[in-house]
Amino acid sequence: MYNSKMYSLGAQGSAIRELYEYGKKRKKEIGEDNVFDFSLGNPSIPSPSIVNETLIDLIKNTDPTKLHGYSSASGDDDVKRSIVEYLNKKYNTDLDYKYIYMSVGAAASLTISLKALIKPSEEVIIIAPYFPEYKVFIENADGIVKVVNSIKPSFTPDFDMLERSINNNTKCIIINSPNNPTGVVYNEEIIKKLCFILEKKQKEYNHNIYLISDEPYRELVYDDINVPFITNYYDNSIICYSFSKSLSLPGERIGYILVNNKCNNKDYIYKSILGSGRSLGFVCAPTLFQYMIPHCLGYTSDINQYKENRDLLYNKLTEYGYEVVKPDGAFYLFVKALSDDSINFSLHARDYELLLVPSDSFGCSGYVRISYCVSLDMIKRALPAFKKLIDDYKEK
Amino acid sequence: MYNSKMYSLGAQGSAIRELYEYGKKRKKEIGEDNVFDFSLGNPSIPSPSIVNETLIDLIKNTDPTKLHGYSSASGDDDVKRSIVEYLNKKYNTDLDYKYIYMSVGAAASLTISLKALIKPSEEVIIIAPYFPEYKVFIENADGIVKVVNSIKPSFTPDFDMLERSINNNTKCIIINSPNNPTGVVYNEEIIKKLCFILEKKQKEYNHNIYLISDEPYRELVYDDINVPFITNYYDNSIICYSFSKSLSLPGERIGYILVNNKCNNKDYIYKSILGSGRSLGFVCAPTLFQYMIPHCLGYTSDINQYKENRDLLYNKLTEYGYEVVKPDGAFYLFVKALSDDSINFSLHARDYELLLVPSDSFGCSGYVRISYCVSLDMIKRALPAFKKLIDDYKEK
Repeated sequence: MYNSKMYSLGAQGSAIRELYEYGKKRKKEIGEDNVFDFSLGNPSIPSPSIVNETLIDLIKNTDPTKLHGYSSASGDDDVKRSIVEYLNKKYNTDLDYKYIYMSVGAAASLTISLKALIKPSEEVIIIAPYFPEYKVFIENADGIVKVVNSIKPSFTPDFDMLERSINNNTKCIIINSPNNPTGVVYNEEIIKKLCFILEKKQKEYNHNIYLISDEPYRELVYDDINVPFITNYYDNSIICYSFSKSLSLPGERIGYILVNNKCNNKDYIYKSILGSGRSLGFVCAPTLFQYMIPHCLGYTSDINQYKENRDLLYNKLTEYGYEVVKPDGAFYLFVKALSDDSINFSLHARDYELLLVPSDSFGCSGYVRISYCVSLDMIKRALPAFKKLIDDYKEK
Repeated sequence: MYNSKMYSLGAQGSAIRELYEYGKKRKKEIGEDNVFDFSLGNPSIPSPSIVNETLIDLIKNTDPTKLHGYSSASGDDDVKRSIVEYLNKKYNTDLDYKYIYMSVGAAASLTISLKALIKPSEEVIIIAPYFPEYKVFIENADGIVKVVNSIKPSFTPDFDMLERSINNNTKCIIINSPNNPTGVVYNEEIIKKLCFILEKKQKEYNHNIYLISDEPYRELVYDDINVPFITNYYDNSIICYSFSKSLSLPGERIGYILVNNKCNNKDYIYKSILGSGRSLGFVCAPTLFQYMIPHCLGYTSDINQYKENRDLLYNKLTEYGYEVVKPDGAFYLFVKALSDDSINFSLHARDYELLLVPSDSFGCSGYVRISYCVSLDMIKRALPAFKKLIDDYKEK
């Protein structure tokens, strides 16, 4: 009657979005201010003012049939050029605008790239904890998910396990740094080690292994942390970028795919991306937001507010006795659950109106994710609830 | 190295978009005004002013973290409610907002719906001439394309062939009225006949056959032509709608999927749509444009301008001796090619800088499609070229 795989995906929903929907309902019941909703990575800091200024300027001063009309399937050339110029200057790269595909956000970038690369039954490596939709996207491309764990408490990849996991059937690996859900940033040493293994395995198996770097949080880092730019470290790399988090516009669905100009078979890969975009129904990313980009490159929302949130939460939770991974980027705090079963722990946290995402759906048990892209005020009001929650467990 | 199916989709490109890209190049070579580009269905009439007014008002007066933030995966409830209220009033229906899924335009609506419905190797019927991407979208869902022809010169479905084409493996049929590429509108008699056959076959094979109505041109009709509203005629129907053409904003990627509230297994179908949207990477349609919708329902661009274009082109081309299907809707003219090979004919038309899409990619040989969503001025300047082209063939 219908596709049962799709039905179960739709019926079960994503754990994160389920919790978000629960939160919406709960807020209606007991009032917005009484629910401490840490569920969704929905930026709480407004876009930099240049975003809305540019939008209004474009709307007022552009021929509306151009502004709201179709762009080329892969996006507007001038927009692509501006992105590449910005990246080349910032990261000292030699990227080519011809290998950019403007996309409807990071999810689209990933589904398009995976479908372009993977032949049925090829394997894709992801590092746990991982963004849960990776599995859904890989399965959409008929690929096979292979999970490599992270080492705790640094939450960097387990390189021994990675080496063992790569085989003749490995097509690509997805990395995500700054990471959702841990907030960990892979430093240059980690990236070099990762790329060294990939290079070695490419030679060993005599085929290309692609590195897909999912980078919606690239700019969201604190304390002068450096995020190594992947194309400088690995030739067969593809970057999936979204402006959702840096410019605080996750609802507007705008990002891009960038194939490294040093990538083997780059023209074939890029054409496969064009084909995959057609196949999935994604040609032509939203134009008003495409045209906004050249004016807003290099701007971000006021990240200091996230840093303030992080510092307060991290300091207080550790003070109360929680075990917390200190995040260098993104806006997530990964906290050890107070019982082995993080789903139960998350349910118990609801008793104090704390909405925390259990880590199981990230492929890692025993933790919860706290999205601290919320108001500082809410964090302050939530602190007593966190305190009571841990006291509960201490009493047991 | 890459997915070869995707590669060939990307390398061959869509015939329409290829011609559009050729046109862009050619315009740079000989000047914008010297190329008569009838290739793309890119609306030439600006959006009604309420669109940009609403956008500016929303940008100025809405909390930016709400405006540009995520909506629920299936879209904002208030937006969905407003759409259903509008439709129920206009078409005297009893639709339910809970069965609306806000989508990134008509292509996304189709890929999501097809993937939600089809199990591998089930068949989908399309009526030739058809929008070429239907085949791509059906194949993306692992479905099998079954083509039913139209009767000429009315370009309505060949019902005998339709009856013969439905079998135990038929999952759904896609219709598109007003039609791209012919401009034909299926009147009530045609729709009733179609639905009668589907009902009969549902009983015969004892399973549901879904009718997907692809309706980006629903409002683009001339001379008080009535477009029957599908849910009033067939229970197992799903509407794929886009605001691209009615509001002249094809680049902004906003539309919806509507499952008829009388549809069998509607809750299962809707949940499969939710799952399919997740799987393809489509959750949360662009929010600024979602929030625009309630303010712009019932508005359209100034359709009279398209009518003026149609009348001039239709009258002149028939006067010159072309055989033309008179369109009641959309903004396409389907013209008999002057040689059997419409691809050759289209290439020869390029000698006069006329960009006409050959009909072969629409699954129908011997015609070209003229998109008359262009300026009246360009049509006037193109007329001598059309005259010369037919004179060429008369001389042969």
